[in-house]
Order: sequence, then structure tokens, then C-alpha cells
Amino acid sequence: QGLEDGARLPCLDIEKLRGENNTLREEQQRLKKVIEKQHRMMEQLGSQIQALEEQISQEESSSQALREESLAKDQNVLELHTAMKELSAQNQELIEQNLTLQEQMSDPEQMISNQASSGLQPAG
Amino acid sequence: QGLEDGARLPCLDIEKLRGENNTLREEQQRLKKVIEKQHRMMEQLGSQIQALEEQISQEESSSQALREESLAKDQNVLELHTAMKELSAQNQELIEQNLTLQEQMSDPEQMISNQASSGLQPAG
Repeated sequence: QGLEDGARLPCLDIEKLRGENNTLREEQQRLKKVIEKQHRMMEQLGSQIQALEEQISQEESSSQALREESLAKDQNVLELHTAMKELSAQNQELIEQNLTLQEQMSDPEQMISNQASSGLQPAG
Repeated sequence: QGLEDGARLPCLDIEKLRGENNTLREEQQRLKKVIEKQHRMMEQLGSQIQALEEQISQEESSSQALREESLAKDQNVLELHTAMKELSAQNQELIEQNLTLQEQMSDPEQMISNQASSGLQPAG
């Protein structure tokens, strides 16, 4: 009786331990798969981050180019405005000269006196 | 002899199994910590990705606004060019009118015939 118990208890322990052992090994395999899967996911996220950083870099270069182009256009507009002011001023002068000449031509006395002062002989 | 062997082998097995068991449990704890750490890293990468996507979105909006501003400036330049061409053409006309008037004023015969045709009396 004592011997049987003594012989049987170790067997039960062994079976129990073998059972736990197997469960632990299976769990270990499962956990290792989870780790591998997470590792692949992290590599994917890493690649995604690289791609996004590249995209940002290009977008910033594009913005910078647009800003420089915009400054050049502003400069161009300033130069055009300046040129237009000069043309407008010329125009004004020419219009006034024109009016003066026309007035002189339609006022013979003024015209003759102008000619006299400029040394021309009036036609007889 | 036989009994001793029989009694000893189960003991060795139990100790061996207990040992493996402990090792497996420790390994399990280690693997679980790795998984937790990887999980935290993935959350961090996820946040990083969100921030980068937000940055890209803002950069694209900025580029779009710059492009629209640029088109408006091009339009402005076209209008200025058109206005300048008109002013230049006016200028040309005025200069030619001016020259014609000056020639008429310095050529009395032409002037008198002009006055005659326009009904003015020459001064005597």
C-alpha cells in the first residue's frame, strides 16, 4: 500500500508536470509568433514613416519654389507699375503740349507773335 | 535493485521536468515583456505617422494657396501688359500729332492754307 502510493504519486506528478510542460511549450510558440508578427508590423510602420518623411520633404521643396517664384512676380509687378507711371506722365505732358500747340494755331495773333519772336517772316 | 531503479528514475524525471518547467515559465515572462515593449513601440510609431500625415496635409494646403496666389499674379501681369500697350500706342499717336502740329506751325503757307480750309481769316 505504502509502496504503491509512493510509486504512484511520483507518476501523477510526472504526468502533471509533463502536461504543464507541453502547455508552456505551446504557449512559448504562440508568443514567439506574436513577436514575429509585431516585428513585421513595426518594419511596415517604419517604411511608412520613411515614405511620409520623403513626401514632406518634397512638398516643402515645392512650397519653397512657389514662394520664390511669387517674390519674382511681385518684383515684376513693381517694375511694370513704375514703367506705367512714367508712360502716364509722358502721356500727360504730350497732351498738354498738344493742347498748347492747337491753341497757338487757332489764335493767329499769338501765332504771329510767336513767329516774330522766333524770327519767321509772316506771309504777305 | 530493480525497485531502486524504478523508484529513482521517476525522481530524476520529476526534477528534470520541474527544471524545464521553471525555465519555460521564466522564458514566458521574458517573451511577454518583449511583446509589451513592441506594443508600446508600435503605438509610438502610429502616433508619429499621424503627426506626419497631419504635416503633409498642412503643407499641401500651403502649396495650393501659393499656386492660386501665383495664378492671380499672372493675371495681374497680363492686365498690366495690356494697359501698357494701350498707353504706349496713345503715346505714339500723341508724339506724331505733336510733330505734325510743329511742322504746320513752322511752315506758314501750309498754316495759311490750313486756316483757309478751316475758315479762319489770315491777319494782314
